[in-house]
Amino acid sequence: SRPAPVAVGGDMATMLAARQREISVSEFFAKNRHLLGFDNPAKALLTTVREAVDNALDACEEADLLPQLHVELEQIREDRFRVIVEDNGPGIVRAQVPKIFGKLLYGSRFHTMKQSRGQQGIGISAAGMYGLLTTGRPVVITSRTGKRKAAHQFEVAINTKKNAPDILRDEQIEWEKPHGTRVEITLEGTYKKGRHSIDGYLKQVAVANPHAQIVYVPPVRKIADEEEATAEPEPRVVYERMTDRRPPEAKEIRPHPHGVELGIFLKMLQDTKARNLRGFLQTEFSRVGNKVIADLMRELAQEAPQITPKTSPKRIARHDAEVLHQALGRVKIMAPPTDCLSPIGEDLLQRALESRVEADFYATVTRPPSVYRGNPFQIEVGLAYGGKQPADELAQLYRYANRVPLQYQRGACAMTRAVTDLPWRNYKISQARGALPTAPMVLAVHIASVWVPFTSESKEAVAHYPEIMREIRLALQECGRRLAAHISKRRRIADEEKKRSYIAKYIPQIGIALQEILGLTDRQRDRTVTTLTDVLERSRKM
Amino acid sequence: SRPAPVAVGGDMATMLAARQREISVSEFFAKNRHLLGFDNPAKALLTTVREAVDNALDACEEADLLPQLHVELEQIREDRFRVIVEDNGPGIVRAQVPKIFGKLLYGSRFHTMKQSRGQQGIGISAAGMYGLLTTGRPVVITSRTGKRKAAHQFEVAINTKKNAPDILRDEQIEWEKPHGTRVEITLEGTYKKGRHSIDGYLKQVAVANPHAQIVYVPPVRKIADEEEATAEPEPRVVYERMTDRRPPEAKEIRPHPHGVELGIFLKMLQDTKARNLRGFLQTEFSRVGNKVIADLMRELAQEAPQITPKTSPKRIARHDAEVLHQALGRVKIMAPPTDCLSPIGEDLLQRALESRVEADFYATVTRPPSVYRGNPFQIEVGLAYGGKQPADELAQLYRYANRVPLQYQRGACAMTRAVTDLPWRNYKISQARGALPTAPMVLAVHIASVWVPFTSESKEAVAHYPEIMREIRLALQECGRRLAAHISKRRRIADEEKKRSYIAKYIPQIGIALQEILGLTDRQRDRTVTTLTDVLERSRKM
Repeated sequence: SRPAPVAVGGDMATMLAARQREISVSEFFAKNRHLLGFDNPAKALLTTVREAVDNALDACEEADLLPQLHVELEQIREDRFRVIVEDNGPGIVRAQVPKIFGKLLYGSRFHTMKQSRGQQGIGISAAGMYGLLTTGRPVVITSRTGKRKAAHQFEVAINTKKNAPDILRDEQIEWEKPHGTRVEITLEGTYKKGRHSIDGYLKQVAVANPHAQIVYVPPVRKIADEEEATAEPEPRVVYERMTDRRPPEAKEIRPHPHGVELGIFLKMLQDTKARNLRGFLQTEFSRVGNKVIADLMRELAQEAPQITPKTSPKRIARHDAEVLHQALGRVKIMAPPTDCLSPIGEDLLQRALESRVEADFYATVTRPPSVYRGNPFQIEVGLAYGGKQPADELAQLYRYANRVPLQYQRGACAMTRAVTDLPWRNYKISQARGALPTAPMVLAVHIASVWVPFTSESKEAVAHYPEIMREIRLALQECGRRLAAHISKRRRIADEEKKRSYIAKYIPQIGIALQEILGLTDRQRDRTVTTLTDVLERSRKM
Repeated sequence: SRPAPVAVGGDMATMLAARQREISVSEFFAKNRHLLGFDNPAKALLTTVREAVDNALDACEEADLLPQLHVELEQIREDRFRVIVEDNGPGIVRAQVPKIFGKLLYGSRFHTMKQSRGQQGIGISAAGMYGLLTTGRPVVITSRTGKRKAAHQFEVAINTKKNAPDILRDEQIEWEKPHGTRVEITLEGTYKKGRHSIDGYLKQVAVANPHAQIVYVPPVRKIADEEEATAEPEPRVVYERMTDRRPPEAKEIRPHPHGVELGIFLKMLQDTKARNLRGFLQTEFSRVGNKVIADLMRELAQEAPQITPKTSPKRIARHDAEVLHQALGRVKIMAPPTDCLSPIGEDLLQRALESRVEADFYATVTRPPSVYRGNPFQIEVGLAYGGKQPADELAQLYRYANRVPLQYQRGACAMTRAVTDLPWRNYKISQARGALPTAPMVLAVHIASVWVPFTSESKEAVAHYPEIMREIRLALQECGRRLAAHISKRRRIADEEKKRSYIAKYIPQIGIALQEILGLTDRQRDRTVTTLTDVLERSRKM
């Protein structure tokens, strides 16, 4: 019973066409800010600190400098804060400042395969945009690139419609720092204590970055507020660096042939400067040597004999390219190089945990590098058990991706899943089904990778790739075994203590009883007690 | 013990600067495709169907046409499918086709406040991009805007680096359809049955869109595969439309003053064509009349007397603008208009459930419109209970946003939370703590809004705004009450049946016993049984 269609001509389509418009990426993210971690004022404040700290640490590492960070919060209204993050990094050249802070999707790390905290070139400019939207205030950036250079100060506001920076101020200033960058963002926020606090976040940063010195100045209320005005300001927190060794430099690598999809492969064939297939494969990819080329040609011999090492990449027809791509997938190729990774290391992670978490027992494991979807990655796990940590609560889980602590969406993260999936009872730790273990314990899990597969752009959880899950499990098992040994030993000692105390407690009573029954002298009784104690002590030790 | 800093000059900063690059939004989403719902082949296939169906339904509604959709899948390799979606919509004018299908963030609905399925102008071009990346195939689009116009067919491939379309083919063709659009996307996918199946998804679409006719042709394997070749193809599924009434047209509205943040407000002041503040407020916002202006001026009298209705918007200083924005927030303003919403309606939702879900009892509630963050929204809940649905399993929850079924991330959705938070035992339904109720039941929850706050760009879950949670709860409670009444009544009937069956079963025995004890004749016995039955029936009914 379909009714007669309403008369439709090009008119309706034309009318609809007139409404079509391009949407700028900053308009998109402004409206969808929760995608970037700006869902609510408390999270927005933490996200802003995190983005600024990530950038500062990345910059120091790229310039091979030991990071010295100053993180400060000022409360300027009940719901308004200024976040200040200052580093001793290499500084930013003047022409780049506006784009880095006033344009989304602008950065140096998106197109490289290299481990770094920032990936997309969105974070800090999004924080600035959120500040602008909620308070109208621009980002203030101070930067100096060397002793002999002048320091510059900028005020930058993102033009959301154009996704481009408006420079409101740009002037030379006096600055005592020889080099570094200082960022100030004013935003609507809420300062919270507890699980998602900035304090907790910085402590976790300190665990994963033992080569960094971090000074944290908690918010001073600069607003009139009688109730709070008399409260003592919170003391500043200083995390001293624990090593003067810089982390090994993470090298940039080329993509691995097994990690490149057909669509990307086709594009690479078109874009390459290589004149023949051999050159293309050997320059654009990692791990392609003569053996791989020879094996590939054998794979192609039947299906597409017209493809040879001398074929021009641009001249390979679409269908042939697909055959080539499939054949490449069948050829055995060495795993990608792993000098693109910079793990914390078992030793340093252990020392960092020892200094930041009070406990009785520590264990750390750094797994060998592995690969998912062509991307190298490496897992580390650390564990701090006992001490004054509460025994009847769930273990604390510190999650890290490229040394950045992950704060939200714990339930959605592969790391959480790997921890809850482990049968902790095997390691003498109690655990409710599907839950984190119940123990006086901090667990730290770190993934280092050239491309961390986050489940959302706000970098809150790692996707459940089986290869990643497996490596985390193996590392957890190793730590778990050591922990179980420690707990067994501790229990054995405790048991012995207990038995000894029983002996000490009951043998004299037995002596007295024997004395009464057998009519022993006091001396006979005491000798009997000593002998009995001896015999029992010996039997206990056997 | 800070070590001497490594020598840093402008050199390092310059070197780092050279690496900075703009990232195109399509490169970003290609690398982060899981943000758009392309995490894995099964989800990618469903997401692609969904985006095409959303667009088809939106287009029909914008042109006020009763939608007639044809959805077809072809399996062309083990892991490769062609998705075909054809509609009878108004068609797309030729110049727009490449951008709509070959450019992310291009669309007609982002800048308008109006209820529609699509919001961002990302979905269909992202599906095309995923297809291109995984199979190298472009999107094929056929479109015709009217009987007297020629049909055109295009092949469009997105240029990821530029976020711009490459037109591979553009030609006139013969097409029997007077107007409409046909989209074909080839992609890597997996066809699954069960909870996240395309079948299940389309059934849910049919429930929320009773004015649409949908024909679904499940995949025919066009590949050689001996095992399956003999299998009967699945039959096509036809959802007939249940009404010839088009849904009420959703009007576009202007923003409400209480829903505009300071940053946006500042920008609007700069961009407006209005020459004075009164004109600005009355033309750019909804619900601003003379009373609001007068109240606003009273609010400002103390703090900023220099601001008057005649002040030029562009000349309001930054600080004054902030004061103005705050004052506006304190003025009482009528809730936004709600003709921008187009709910399904209690009646149609009930009929749709009746026809698509076999059950004993149905209840539907459409709540009055409400507002969150200045955005109007409206909640509907439908319930289908009993029948042949399994009694000892969790209830099925259909979640809808602007008539689009949400398929993934159930646990992260405000709708799920509202359902699990409801004390179902009060409504005579059993429920484990924190879980969905256990009952032979389908629950459908629908939010209609000019801006649905999804927790991710892949549109899988609705964010937990308290206003939204409250409306869902109220609608669920109303349905729950009606369900409880139904269950009570049914139980009462069942109890009566039971009692009656007891009477029928035991009274004759009592008759025989009395006969033996008192030596009654058969006739006396039968009369006694009849009298007893009568008395008991009467007492039971009282």
